[in-house]
Amino acid sequence: MSSADANAISRLEVELGARSYPIYIGRGLLADSELLGKYVDAASAFVVSNETVAPLYLDQLVKTAGLDPARSVVLADGEQYKNIASMQKIFDAMIAGQCDRGTTILALGGGVVGDMAGFAAACYQRGVRFVQFPTTLLAQVDSSVGGKTGVNHPLGKNMIGAFHQPGAVFIDTNTLDTLADREYRAGIAEVIKYGFIRDREFLQWLHENMARLLARDPDALRHAIMRSCACKAAVVADDETENGVRAILNFGHTFGHAIESATAYSALLHGEAVGLGMLMALDFCKRCGLIDAHDFESSRQLIEAAGLPVLLPHTVSSGKQLLRLMQHDKKVKRGRVRLVLLKSLGEAFITGEYSDELLEELLESYVSQV
Amino acid sequence: MSSADANAISRLEVELGARSYPIYIGRGLLADSELLGKYVDAASAFVVSNETVAPLYLDQLVKTAGLDPARSVVLADGEQYKNIASMQKIFDAMIAGQCDRGTTILALGGGVVGDMAGFAAACYQRGVRFVQFPTTLLAQVDSSVGGKTGVNHPLGKNMIGAFHQPGAVFIDTNTLDTLADREYRAGIAEVIKYGFIRDREFLQWLHENMARLLARDPDALRHAIMRSCACKAAVVADDETENGVRAILNFGHTFGHAIESATAYSALLHGEAVGLGMLMALDFCKRCGLIDAHDFESSRQLIEAAGLPVLLPHTVSSGKQLLRLMQHDKKVKRGRVRLVLLKSLGEAFITGEYSDELLEELLESYVSQV
Repeated sequence: MSSADANAISRLEVELGARSYPIYIGRGLLADSELLGKYVDAASAFVVSNETVAPLYLDQLVKTAGLDPARSVVLADGEQYKNIASMQKIFDAMIAGQCDRGTTILALGGGVVGDMAGFAAACYQRGVRFVQFPTTLLAQVDSSVGGKTGVNHPLGKNMIGAFHQPGAVFIDTNTLDTLADREYRAGIAEVIKYGFIRDREFLQWLHENMARLLARDPDALRHAIMRSCACKAAVVADDETENGVRAILNFGHTFGHAIESATAYSALLHGEAVGLGMLMALDFCKRCGLIDAHDFESSRQLIEAAGLPVLLPHTVSSGKQLLRLMQHDKKVKRGRVRLVLLKSLGEAFITGEYSDELLEELLESYVSQV
Repeated sequence: MSSADANAISRLEVELGARSYPIYIGRGLLADSELLGKYVDAASAFVVSNETVAPLYLDQLVKTAGLDPARSVVLADGEQYKNIASMQKIFDAMIAGQCDRGTTILALGGGVVGDMAGFAAACYQRGVRFVQFPTTLLAQVDSSVGGKTGVNHPLGKNMIGAFHQPGAVFIDTNTLDTLADREYRAGIAEVIKYGFIRDREFLQWLHENMARLLARDPDALRHAIMRSCACKAAVVADDETENGVRAILNFGHTFGHAIESATAYSALLHGEAVGLGMLMALDFCKRCGLIDAHDFESSRQLIEAAGLPVLLPHTVSSGKQLLRLMQHDKKVKRGRVRLVLLKSLGEAFITGEYSDELLEELLESYVSQV
C-alpha cells in the first residue's frame, strides 16, 4: 500500500487443481471489455441479477461484454427470495433463452444472486460454467471464494445447494459506490473475520486503516478485499468440501445464525449478526481464558469502529432460546455444538470441548444487556 | 453361466477413484442384513420410495436394515412427478426427520425414485451419501451406474440435476417378480443397447438367451444385469461427466426422446421408445452403409424377440416434427444433431457428419408405416 493507483487491478489465483480460477479486483472492471472478453463469450452468456442491481449495472455489463440483453433474468431482491421458487424462475428463463450445456451464467449482484446463480449453474443440465460479478462487499469477500451455492428452506438457511466453483470472479470496487452504508459496514464484519481467524498482521492493518476503509478509499478497499479473498482461498484450498478446517470460516456464525433466527432474519443484516456473533465468540474466548482482557477489548473496539452493532436486538429475550437455536445449526455433530474459537488473535480452532455453563452464562449476559 | 445357483451374488466394482463403489446383484439382497449392514447405518438412513414400491418392499428394507420407518418419504409414482415439487417433498421430509450432513439416503424404487433421491442427496446440505436399491430392470441396468441424477422441467427431460455417485447399489432381482411385463421388456431394451454399442459377444448371448431372460430366469438375469452394468461402468469410467465418449450410451435415445416428446410421453414407456429409437438408428446405419442388411435384420429380430414395439405410435404423423424434436435434444452442439451410430454391431461412435436427406427419408419412412 505504498502509493495510490486508482487504475490498479489485482489478480488472485484460487488454487483448486482443475477447478482453479482467477479473481480480479479493481475499479471499473465492468467497463473493461478486453479483460471480460477473455472469460465471457457473448453468445453463450446468460445473466442472473436482481431488481436493485440490474438498473444500476446490467446495461454496462451488457454493453461491455456485447451480450444479448434478452438472455437474462432479474429476480426480486432480498434473502426471502433465496428459495426454490426463484430457482425455477432462473431455469424457466434459461430454457426460454435456449441455454444449453455450453452456457455461462453471469451472476451480477450480491451474495443472494451469487448463491442462486451458482446453484443454477451447478444444476442446469447437470452443470454449466458461471462467472461472478459480486456487487456488495460481503459477496466480494465471502461468496467469491469457496464454491458454496444454494438456497434456503423455510426451516433452515442454505439447506439445499451444491459446491460449484466459478470460472472467474470480477470484483469492480466501483459497484460499492452505490452500496448503502449499513450494508457496506456489514461487509466489513466479514473482512475483520479473516483477521481474527488467520491473519493477525491484517488485523493490525485494519486497526490502522478502518477510517480509510469506511471512506471507501479505493486502494484500501482493494487491499482489504485481496487479503480477505486470499485468506479464504487458502482455507478453502485445504478443504474444498468443508469436512474439517474450513469450518473456521464460520467464526462468529454459529452465534450469528442463532441471532438471525431468533429475530426472524429481520432485525440485523447477516454481516451485522456475524459481527455481533464474533463479539460474543471473542467474549467466550475471554471467559474460557483463551484470550486476555486486552485482546478482547481491542477486538471489541475494532468491531465498534466499523460501526457494527454490539448489542443484541431487544426482541431477543432468552439465552436458552439462543442456545437451542445454536444447537440446530448445521455444524452440529451428534447434538453437541462445535464452536470456532481463537487460541489467540489470528489463530482459530474448532472444538466441542467447552463448558456449557460458561456458554449459557455468556448468552444470558448478552440478553440481559437488551 | 455354467450351472444355476439361485443364491449367487455377483459384485461389480465401479472404478471412479475416490468415488468408486460396489454393485451387488442377486436374489434376496433386501433380506441380507449382513451385507446391507456393511453399507447402511440404521441411525443415519432416510428412505425415498414411491407409492407403488413402498407397499411391496419398504417393510422388508426397514426390517433388514433396522431402520426407523418414520424417516422416509413415499412419493407419487410416475415420470410426471419427477419434478421440483417432488424434490421439495423430499427436502421437507428430510428436515422433518432431522437429517444432517451425516445422513445416507436410501433410494428404493425405479429410475424416477433413483434420479430424485440421488439429486436430493447431491443437494441436501450441499451433498450427502446415498445408496440405491433399484427395483425395475431399467433402473438396475441404467440408473445404477453413471451418477446422473435430476428432475424434468416442463420444457425438457432431466434439465435440472447433478452428477452424484452412490455409495453402493443393491440389485435384488427378486424385486423384478412384481414388475409388469411391459415394464420388464422396456428394461430389456437398455440391456440390448449395451450389446449394440460395445459388446458383440453379449449381443450373441442375448440372441441365444432371450427366452430365458423373458422368463426371468434368475441366472440369466444376473448375467444380463452384470454385463450391462459392467459395460456402462467401463464407459462412465472413461468420461464421468459426459464430455465425450459417454454419449454412446445415448444410442437410440435421440430418436427415442423425439418419439417420447411427439407423443407427450404417454404412448410408450421410455425403454420402449429407446427400443424403437435403436431400430431407427440401426436402420439409419444400414441406409448410410455402416452395417449390412443381414446385421440390420438380425438386430431387428432381437428387438422384436424382446417384445418391444417396432412401429411408431399412430399419433406421430410427421417426419419433420420428429426432426425438429431431435434438434432440441440436449446433445445438440450449435444446431447440428450429433447422432450415435454403429461402425459395426458392438461398436458405436458419435458423429455430426451424415446426410440430412437420408435422415429425413428415414424419419418419413417410419411415419408412413403408421
